[in-house]
Amino acid sequence: MATEETRTVQEAYPMTGGDGLYSYAKNSTQQRKAIDSAKELIKKAIAEKLDKEILLSPKTFRIADLGCSVGPNTFFAAQNILEAVESKYKSEGLNSQIPDVQVFFSDHTSNDFNQLFTSLPQDRRYYAAGVPGSFHGPLFPQNSLHFVHSSSAIQWLSRAPKEVVNKNSPAWNKGRIHCSNSGDEVVLAYKAQYDKDMQQFLQARSGEIVFGGLMVLIVPGIPNGTHHSQSLRSLTFEIFGSCLMDLARKGIISEEKVDSFNLPIYYMSPQELEAAVERNGCFSIEGLEYLPPVIPNVSGESKFNGQFLASYLRAGMEGIIKQHFGEEILDVIFDSYGKKIEENSSIFKFGKAVYFLIILKRIAEN
Amino acid sequence: MATEETRTVQEAYPMTGGDGLYSYAKNSTQQRKAIDSAKELIKKAIAEKLDKEILLSPKTFRIADLGCSVGPNTFFAAQNILEAVESKYKSEGLNSQIPDVQVFFSDHTSNDFNQLFTSLPQDRRYYAAGVPGSFHGPLFPQNSLHFVHSSSAIQWLSRAPKEVVNKNSPAWNKGRIHCSNSGDEVVLAYKAQYDKDMQQFLQARSGEIVFGGLMVLIVPGIPNGTHHSQSLRSLTFEIFGSCLMDLARKGIISEEKVDSFNLPIYYMSPQELEAAVERNGCFSIEGLEYLPPVIPNVSGESKFNGQFLASYLRAGMEGIIKQHFGEEILDVIFDSYGKKIEENSSIFKFGKAVYFLIILKRIAEN
Repeated sequence: MATEETRTVQEAYPMTGGDGLYSYAKNSTQQRKAIDSAKELIKKAIAEKLDKEILLSPKTFRIADLGCSVGPNTFFAAQNILEAVESKYKSEGLNSQIPDVQVFFSDHTSNDFNQLFTSLPQDRRYYAAGVPGSFHGPLFPQNSLHFVHSSSAIQWLSRAPKEVVNKNSPAWNKGRIHCSNSGDEVVLAYKAQYDKDMQQFLQARSGEIVFGGLMVLIVPGIPNGTHHSQSLRSLTFEIFGSCLMDLARKGIISEEKVDSFNLPIYYMSPQELEAAVERNGCFSIEGLEYLPPVIPNVSGESKFNGQFLASYLRAGMEGIIKQHFGEEILDVIFDSYGKKIEENSSIFKFGKAVYFLIILKRIAEN
Repeated sequence: MATEETRTVQEAYPMTGGDGLYSYAKNSTQQRKAIDSAKELIKKAIAEKLDKEILLSPKTFRIADLGCSVGPNTFFAAQNILEAVESKYKSEGLNSQIPDVQVFFSDHTSNDFNQLFTSLPQDRRYYAAGVPGSFHGPLFPQNSLHFVHSSSAIQWLSRAPKEVVNKNSPAWNKGRIHCSNSGDEVVLAYKAQYDKDMQQFLQARSGEIVFGGLMVLIVPGIPNGTHHSQSLRSLTFEIFGSCLMDLARKGIISEEKVDSFNLPIYYMSPQELEAAVERNGCFSIEGLEYLPPVIPNVSGESKFNGQFLASYLRAGMEGIIKQHFGEEILDVIFDSYGKKIEENSSIFKFGKAVYFLIILKRIAEN
């Protein structure tokens, strides 16, 4: 059960709900690509890494997708996992013992669960449930999950580090909203928040996942050994931050408003995640694979489209921007971002980004 | 898993969402009284009827509330059950073996789950999940629930009987919206729909509830041996129907619109429910108790208040009325209902109504 503390300090920034122009439902094709390219890897993980005892024990096989948003991506993921689990039963000669499957779709309480439930596939072969709450705390009963999936979600921190918005701190991140070109203190504050949050995430999951159960995390991150100033995703936030500062200079928002805002996102390297898993001690690392990049690359043949990138960012960020700056600036800020990212499209040449998948197995008591 | 048929023919009329003037959240104090008066009966049922084997077997104790609406009543019910289960463990000397408790809040997909999740008690001692779908079909994995609760919900049918809105049928219910003063054919059509729906409900639950698990249903109904023309609740619908016909006479809605509308609600007697349980064969009846009446009685000292009754009805009926007749008529219809029910307050003297609670235990395979 989440402690009072984790419940009250958690900040929640859901993806844009509904199915409108800027909805996550209509602007998450990039995240879909990650799920598609992960499909075979998940199938392989279930085929090779899921112990036969896990198959024989449960009356119900329970799957959770953490940070599910509103669909449809979460439904593709659930279907992939279901099929892989069924294949595994069949390949082990346990055809007649396939249990009922229950899929828990989990995200922040402020996620649009109404939209999620309305769009559940009619022909699903699993029992669906929604679980509201932060994945930085416990969400499920002890030893109740057999497979946990989370795609493009664990880069979200429980909050931006306190220090980066504190003008009396050496880590004050004045005029910026993320840690790409900021000083070392800012980067260290983000890293410390990440370390704490990731331990809470792993601690919670180690309680919930049965011994031998699997967890697959799909993570947008940075290559090993890369400084955040080279992180492509952070650089796009640098540009977004500069658009906010442009608005401040025009007097549309105050500079203090920008200074008091930092994104609660940390792009980790595979090594950082591996180190966190080892520190936690409850999971073995069964595999780590790189997925094809999902951020458009200007070196390719297709024309670079700033407005497409702006819509993509808006689907994920509208909630948090609206909450801090108000609804009025949404159109203007994402419009100016679309233009500025086109002017600065060179970042897609030198910026670094990876999408990776890690397969964990619960091996020890927490 | 619900079959395609149950999925497509089901009709869903959620309680009014949000927390506004006519919301279910703000207009369900009558239903709350039922839950309060059921509290001790549920506690007693868990203390006396829940077998010790049930307590020892599960790693997670799973509770479901079916037809939960948006709260707060469902949270009171969940808390009551949780405390009773904990007391039972303690009284059996199993203090150290109290498992995690998971509560599934279930209602139609169109229920306002966002409102439900947002208002979940912060200090709850259970893991919460939402389950969308019709309780006339399966909602949970086989043998996964230990206690099922449903209050003021199973009077809802999966649909109004087809015949009552078919002008070529002898059961056509012209100019009326329910079966109180209608002919025998109408009453029989309602009864047949009830029989079918209740069997589907019991069939689904008998698969989901573990052997020895309990189900408590709190039911607004009619006394044994009472004709529906004497049913107080049906008589209030008779008045509501006549308000709709008034609007038709004024040309605000068409008469055909009224003729094509019947409420998918059936007020069963305790004997009818007992007969359905016996016919199903998977449950034993462990108890049947009457709860204090929750409909205001004009014979009491408090002044009869038509507008209060109108708000009460609106919280439960706004969705279905809006869906069929459009939003425009809502204020006028509930206003005229409030007036007309005051003029006809004598129905509260001769109309019959009971609120009863039945305790079932799953005893056989389905």
